[in-house]
Amino acid sequence: MNIATFDTMKTFSPEKMKKVNLFGTDRMFCDLYCFEAGQFQKIHAHAGEDKVYCVLEGQGTFTVGEEEEVVGAGSAILAPAGLPHGVMNHSGTRLLVLVFMAPKPSH
Amino acid sequence: MNIATFDTMKTFSPEKMKKVNLFGTDRMFCDLYCFEAGQFQKIHAHAGEDKVYCVLEGQGTFTVGEEEEVVGAGSAILAPAGLPHGVMNHSGTRLLVLVFMAPKPSH
Repeated sequence: MNIATFDTMKTFSPEKMKKVNLFGTDRMFCDLYCFEAGQFQKIHAHAGEDKVYCVLEGQGTFTVGEEEEVVGAGSAILAPAGLPHGVMNHSGTRLLVLVFMAPKPSH
Repeated sequence: MNIATFDTMKTFSPEKMKKVNLFGTDRMFCDLYCFEAGQFQKIHAHAGEDKVYCVLEGQGTFTVGEEEEVVGAGSAILAPAGLPHGVMNHSGTRLLVLVFMAPKPSH
């Protein structure tokens, strides 16, 4: 069975936010995003893919479109196709986020 | 911003496992599955959709294809299109699972 356990797979880098792929199919992918304090995912957009962020540990400042919110563990955020979105770890501790995207980008 | 907080949205029913939709787009959906002790999602398959289960609270017995595993909070499981899959809460406590599916089923 294809099981991903976050505590054993999460990987942090002092250089920048680290992405760890958990699952990928022709239809979607699922990653862990591992942020040290102060690290970020810059604001960007996908024309044809929807993303869901699920905060597993810590808290981050999430931007979707014109809105910015601090979101902590136990919540998920939708970043629909076309809207600029990004994450900043303004906190002093690690931030761990489960990310789901569909469909799988072709690039 | 479209934010779903699990503690405020989770809903349990004494009758059967309760599904709570968090997000839905043309490309995917995201649900919470809320199992009381002894409740289940029967084994079924989708010809063209991939599912990811992410265990948020408790533990469940997950079936994917011919395999069966007890999986607890902090892990995710891939149920790829075509493989029979289901969940049984054999534990004595509640089980909360985040579910992603892509693409969104047309039926």
